Amino acid sequence: MDSHLQRYPLMETPLEKALTTMVSTFHKYSGREGSKLTLSRKELKELIKKELCLGEKMKESGIDDLMRTLDKNSDQEIDFKEYTVFLTTLCMAYNDFFLEEDK
Amino acid sequence: MDSHLQRYPLMETPLEKALTTMVSTFHKYSGREGSKLTLSRKELKELIKKELCLGEKMKESGIDDLMRTLDKNSDQEIDFKEYTVFLTTLCMAYNDFFLEEDK
Repeated sequence: MDSHLQRYPLMETPLEKALTTMVSTFHKYSGREGSKLTLSRKELKELIKKELCLGEKMKESGIDDLMRTLDKNSDQEIDFKEYTVFLTTLCMAYNDFFLEEDK
Repeated sequence: MDSHLQRYPLMETPLEKALTTMVSTFHKYSGREGSKLTLSRKELKELIKKELCLGEKMKESGIDDLMRTLDKNSDQEIDFKEYTVFLTTLCMAYNDFFLEEDK
């Protein structure tokens, strides 16, 4: 994954870097166990704990709730599309936070 | 917007930075004309041309098509939620590209 990101460093704008980070973060965890193209509960938990500040405070029951909410097709795995729904929700929460701070 | 991003620099992981970039990029353009909370066609065009490599090649008709696709409530403006749908679509295209390259 990194080789692709490094191949085009001069072409990348901040928004493109944001998109590649979202993709590479998924694959950093999805490849650890089971299917390489999906996040298991354990992989999702590791991603949240390591890559998001909110993860530190999240309890096991919070991980379970999140897993249930994101896993639309109920296969106990989070695929890339389900992961983008999660990021979109976070992105909208960030936006609300910034708008609130700007008041 | 920048003041908030700079306030917590040490707390930010790459994924969190990606999320804040998505938010700040939207507001960089949404505040230029009309409503500060939405992108007009002109603002969307500027964002695409300046922040995405694909923008260079995009024709006026492409901007029109994109505007129609994203503007779900047909108010001639792209709100933050409609913008996240655009980024999600791009993110999935990036993912497909990387998976293809990894073969």
